[in-house]
Amino acid sequence: MHLSESPPGTSPARLEAFSDGVLAIAATLLVLELHVPDAGQDLGPALIAQWPSYVVYVVSFATIGIIWVNHHGLFVHVRRVDRTLLFLNLLLLLAVSLIPFPTAVVGRFVTAERDSHLAAALYGGLMVLTSIAFTGVWRHITRDARLLGRGLDPMRARRESVLFSAGLAAYVAGVVVAFVSAELSLLIYGLVAVFYIFPWLPEPAG
Amino acid sequence: MHLSESPPGTSPARLEAFSDGVLAIAATLLVLELHVPDAGQDLGPALIAQWPSYVVYVVSFATIGIIWVNHHGLFVHVRRVDRTLLFLNLLLLLAVSLIPFPTAVVGRFVTAERDSHLAAALYGGLMVLTSIAFTGVWRHITRDARLLGRGLDPMRARRESVLFSAGLAAYVAGVVVAFVSAELSLLIYGLVAVFYIFPWLPEPAG
Amino acid sequence: MHLSESPPGTSPARLEAFSDGVLAIAATLLVLELHVPDAGQDLGPALIAQWPSYVVYVVSFATIGIIWVNHHGLFVHVRRVDRTLLFLNLLLLLAVSLIPFPTAVVGRFVTAERDSHLAAALYGGLMVLTSIAFTGVWRHITRDARLLGRGLDPMRARRESVLFSAGLAAYVAGVVVAFVSAELSLLIYGLVAVFYIFPWLPEPAG
Amino acid sequence: MHLSESPPGTSPARLEAFSDGVLAIAATLLVLELHVPDAGQDLGPALIAQWPSYVVYVVSFATIGIIWVNHHGLFVHVRRVDRTLLFLNLLLLLAVSLIPFPTAVVGRFVTAERDSHLAAALYGGLMVLTSIAFTGVWRHITRDARLLGRGLDPMRARRESVLFSAGLAAYVAGVVVAFVSAELSLLIYGLVAVFYIFPWLPEPAG
Repeated sequence: MHLSESPPGTSPARLEAFSDGVLAIAATLLVLELHVPDAGQDLGPALIAQWPSYVVYVVSFATIGIIWVNHHGLFVHVRRVDRTLLFLNLLLLLAVSLIPFPTAVVGRFVTAERDSHLAAALYGGLMVLTSIAFTGVWRHITRDARLLGRGLDPMRARRESVLFSAGLAAYVAGVVVAFVSAELSLLIYGLVAVFYIFPWLPEPAG
Repeated sequence: MHLSESPPGTSPARLEAFSDGVLAIAATLLVLELHVPDAGQDLGPALIAQWPSYVVYVVSFATIGIIWVNHHGLFVHVRRVDRTLLFLNLLLLLAVSLIPFPTAVVGRFVTAERDSHLAAALYGGLMVLTSIAFTGVWRHITRDARLLGRGLDPMRARRESVLFSAGLAAYVAGVVVAFVSAELSLLIYGLVAVFYIFPWLPEPAG
Repeated sequence: MHLSESPPGTSPARLEAFSDGVLAIAATLLVLELHVPDAGQDLGPALIAQWPSYVVYVVSFATIGIIWVNHHGLFVHVRRVDRTLLFLNLLLLLAVSLIPFPTAVVGRFVTAERDSHLAAALYGGLMVLTSIAFTGVWRHITRDARLLGRGLDPMRARRESVLFSAGLAAYVAGVVVAFVSAELSLLIYGLVAVFYIFPWLPEPAG
Repeated sequence: MHLSESPPGTSPARLEAFSDGVLAIAATLLVLELHVPDAGQDLGPALIAQWPSYVVYVVSFATIGIIWVNHHGLFVHVRRVDRTLLFLNLLLLLAVSLIPFPTAVVGRFVTAERDSHLAAALYGGLMVLTSIAFTGVWRHITRDARLLGRGLDPMRARRESVLFSAGLAAYVAGVVVAFVSAELSLLIYGLVAVFYIFPWLPEPAG
C-alpha cells in the first residue's frame, strides 16, 4: 500500500475522533439524569426509589460502550472514507446522541402505573434506529473495496452481518414485548448488551 | 515537502482536535433541551406536544454535523496554522457553541401564539454569524499559500466560495421569512442542511 | 518490534482517546453541581453555605485526574489491546462516569443532620468499585505478555500492585469510617488523592 | 534527536488530548447557563434582560480559547512530560473547569443592586488562580532542559514571562476594581482577553 493512496484528509482519523467524542459525551451525560435527592428528603429511601434509573443507566452505558467497541472494530478495516460514509456515520451519531432522552424517560416511567409500556417501547424504538444506522455504515464500508483496507475476509463479513441482524431483531422484539411488560422489554435490551460483550467472532490475527 | 517545514506545533492537529471536541459537545448537549415529562403527566401527549423540539434538534444536529464535515474537508488542505487562523477558528467555535441556546428557544416558542417569529429569527441570526465566521476561516486559509498544503485548485476554491455564499444567503432569507412564518423559516434552515449533504463538488482524487 | 505485529486497530490509540473523553467530561461535568444562588439571595452567605460542594469538587476532580495520570502511565506499556481489555476498560469508565452523582449527594448531605453518613459511604462505595475496575484493567494487562510492550519490569509491576491495594484498602476504610464521621471519611478520600500525587515509584528511564 | 529519547508515553500527546477535552467541554458547557425564557414570557424583553449573561459568556469563552491557544503554543516546545508537569497541568485544568460557575454567578448578579461587586470579584479571583496555575506550568517547563524540545530561545522565554505577569496583574487589578464597579471590572477581564489576541511576540520561524 502506498501512503499516497491514502491522503490524510480521507483517512478515518478525524471521523474516529469526532465519533469518539459524541459517544463519550452521550455516555457521560447519562449521569445528569440521576437525581440528587433534596436535602429535606430521607436519603436512603430516595436513592432506592430511583432504582430503575440505575438499571437503565447501566444498560445505556453498556449499549453505547458496545457501539463504540464495534465502531472501533469496524474502522480497523477502513482505509479511507468518502462523503457518503461521513453522513451515514453522522446519522448513527444522531441516533446515539438521543439515547440519554429515552433513558431518562424509562428511568422515570418504567415503574409508573401506566405509560411504562410506552416508555420501554420508545427506548427500544431508538435502539432499532441506531441498529439500522450502524448497519448502514457497515454495509457501505464492506461493499466498497476502495474504503476497505487490509482485506476484511468476505466470510467473516457475512457472519458479522448475521450478528448485526440478530441485534436488530432483538430490539424489534423488545419494542413488541414492551406493550406486554416494560420490565421484560428492558431485560431484553440488557441481554442484547450482554450478548455483544462475548466475542462471537475470532479476533483477527495480529 | 520537507517535514522540517511543518513543525508539529504549527500543524493543524491540535486545532482539529479542539474543534472536534467543541463540535461534538455542542451537538451532544442538544439532548439536554428535550424535556422528560413529569411522572404525573400523560407520557404520549406530553412527548407529542414537544414535536418542534425534535424537529429543531435534527436541524441543529445536522447543521453542526455539516459544519464538521466541511471543517474536515477544508483542513485536509491545510499544511500549517498561524495565530490569526487559531482565532478565526475560535470565533467559529464560539458561534457553534451557542447553537444549543436558540435551538432550545425555537423548540419552546415556535408553536407559541406570538414570539415564534422572533425565535425563528434568532436561530437564523446565529446561523448567519456562523456562516460569516466559517467564511472568514475559509478566506484566510485559501488566500495564504503558506497555510495551504498540497495545492487546492484555485478554480475549485472559487466554486466552493459560491457554495458558502449560497448558504449565507439562504440563512439571511430565513431570518427575513421568519417574520412572516416561523415554520417556513425553519423549513429553510432544514433545507440548507439537506443542500449541503449532497456533494456539489467532485471529491479530490485519492 | 515489527510494526506489523501491532496493526493500527489493535493499538491502544482509540481506547486512550475514548477514555480521555469520558474522564475529561466526567471531571468537567462536576461544575454543574455547584448551584448558582438565586438573584434574590445574599450572594456571600449563599456561596459560603455550599462549602462542602467545593471540597468534594476538588476531591472528585483530583481523583479523576489521578485516575487519568495512572491510566496514562499504565498504557505507556501497552502494545496492543484485546476485546477483554476493551470491556474491562469500559467497566472502569462506567464507574468513573458515575462520580458526579455521589459527588453531588455528598455536597448536599454531608452537613445534613442525618444521612451524612450514608452520603459519605455512597461516595466511598463508588471509589471501591472504581479501584476494583482499575485493578482488573491492570491485572489483565500485566498478566498477558502479548499486550505488554517494551517490557514492564516484573518487580516494578509487583510494587505497583501494592500501591493499588493500598488505595483500595483506604477506600474500604473510608466507607467504614463514614458511619462514624462523614467528615473524617471525606478526609480519607482526599488523602488518598494526595497520596497518589507523589511519585512512589521511580520514573522509567527516558 | 533520537526517537528513543522520547518514548510515546512521556510525549505530551495524551496530556494535550486530555487538556483539549477539558478546555473544549468547559467552553461549551457555558451555554447551559443561558436561560431559555418560559413559554408564557415575552421573549424579546426576557432575552434582552439577560444581556450580562451574553457579555460574560463571550468573555469566558474568549478567555478559555486564549488559554487553549497559549497552551497549544507552549506545548509546541515540549519534548517530554514528567509527573510534576502532569499534576501542574491538572491544577490548571481544575481552575479552568470551574470557570462556568463564576460565569453564571456574574451573569445573574452583575446587574443586581447589591452583591454585583462580590460576583465580579469572585470571577476575577478564579482568573487570578488560573493565571498562577498557568505560570506554574510555564515555569516548570522552561526551567527544565529535559522537558524542552527544539530549544526555546531564553530571551523569548523571558519576554513571554513578562506577558504572563501582565495578565496576572490585570486580573488582580480587576478584583480590586470590582469593589468599586462590577461593570468596570468586567471590562478589564474582557480587555485582558483582547490583549492576548494580538501576537506580542514574533511567531517562530516555520
